[in-house]
Amino acid sequence: MVRSGNKRAESKRSEATHALDAVSPVPLYSQIREALRRSILDGTYPPHSQMPSESQMIARFGVSRITIRQALGDLQKEGLIFKVMGKGSFVAKPKAFQSLSRLQGFGEAMAPSGYETYAMLLSAREVPASAVVAQRLALAEGSPVFEIQRLRYLNREPISVDVSYFPIDIGQRLTQEDLATRDIFVILENDYGHNLTHADVQIEAISAEESLGRHLDVAEGSPLLRIERLTYAGERPIDFEFLYYRGDAFQYRLRIDRS
Amino acid sequence: MVRSGNKRAESKRSEATHALDAVSPVPLYSQIREALRRSILDGTYPPHSQMPSESQMIARFGVSRITIRQALGDLQKEGLIFKVMGKGSFVAKPKAFQSLSRLQGFGEAMAPSGYETYAMLLSAREVPASAVVAQRLALAEGSPVFEIQRLRYLNREPISVDVSYFPIDIGQRLTQEDLATRDIFVILENDYGHNLTHADVQIEAISAEESLGRHLDVAEGSPLLRIERLTYAGERPIDFEFLYYRGDAFQYRLRIDRS
Repeated sequence: MVRSGNKRAESKRSEATHALDAVSPVPLYSQIREALRRSILDGTYPPHSQMPSESQMIARFGVSRITIRQALGDLQKEGLIFKVMGKGSFVAKPKAFQSLSRLQGFGEAMAPSGYETYAMLLSAREVPASAVVAQRLALAEGSPVFEIQRLRYLNREPISVDVSYFPIDIGQRLTQEDLATRDIFVILENDYGHNLTHADVQIEAISAEESLGRHLDVAEGSPLLRIERLTYAGERPIDFEFLYYRGDAFQYRLRIDRS
Repeated sequence: MVRSGNKRAESKRSEATHALDAVSPVPLYSQIREALRRSILDGTYPPHSQMPSESQMIARFGVSRITIRQALGDLQKEGLIFKVMGKGSFVAKPKAFQSLSRLQGFGEAMAPSGYETYAMLLSAREVPASAVVAQRLALAEGSPVFEIQRLRYLNREPISVDVSYFPIDIGQRLTQEDLATRDIFVILENDYGHNLTHADVQIEAISAEESLGRHLDVAEGSPLLRIERLTYAGERPIDFEFLYYRGDAFQYRLRIDRS
């Protein structure tokens, strides 16, 4: 049982000069974790920079490796830092977030926060519907659908790969549009007159296979947020998508009511 | 541009005996992917089993390594299989899911689907509030809060680590309850009379650090779904949690309206 007194740890000094308080009721690993957190949040360790090595921290703080690892483990659990096998720990960048309370395209969701978004077209082609795509779009397996793959950028850094499937007529028409700067949702509604009503969404975590890692500029095996989203115009499913977001750069937020 | 005819690929045979159709408009990698998918879904390759090696598949299907990798890459993107560095590809188990449309504890959310849930208490102790915990629970940094760590099981397999912070009086009282089989939400409401109203939730993907991997029985670096959840009783935040779900075993689902 750890009990905290009223005296607060001095929280304003940078961790480089921060003397640990050995008689504080706050455990050493917590003191180190909070010192490192401050150095990340105040920019001493900027996004994507490498954290000092465990040995450097052991020397600096005068504590055991276990203590350093516990502090780093906590920060990794929070998503503030991430580990690259064989290389060490790196600072994650502040995560952009999109609200899940309302169905929105990435561009329209991010624009009000001042973010710049852009989409690079990776491919646009007719393909035979796989079992999953056919089931979702209510088509026969193997019947033609249109697949559009885009790499999305947020403030000029890659943030997601979006793989979208459309009924063939809609997809073919979409290739003539400005997909670089316009959300497909907005085109479907404003230009094509489809009344988008809702989407069914599944959210999970996977690790990046090689091609996703390459597009998103992260190491193979890095954590990704994977979204399966089936968007309806009334009863008709018209847009089935797989979205792969960089785990270190993006989060969803929402408010959920109890009843 | 790949164009599909009307003839559907024969989809009922198992992939072991499935001859690829070289003149089909369906690309070979898609045929292999769908054949492997069927073998996973029909139980030929059960959950957690190792997939045949790339070399075995090259021999079996008579195609290039690139083609096999494209098929496996697609299945990995879907979350049907996952790769373990240096060991090969393994079949993921079917993912349990929880709806995000209503704020629910894990037990009350999963019970209606026939799942058995259980929680093992990892630790319960008073700790000084870190900067993040203090901010969320509207307390001064360093003031005492109660931390409860639980390892949650779904059908007797570990599914999540839940780290929860409470105002000190609530947390201390909770240690006297049956946390193994009862959701904390239900105790807070039914036993303590707190009227839970809503929660603010953040969802992201991280990779497991060592201790999370150990508890969840996954390799360090495996993808996890990380949830930050702050639950309110009216205006008062009374339960701040970090939930770490196994990426290979769990997903969230919700329906989102356009307007």
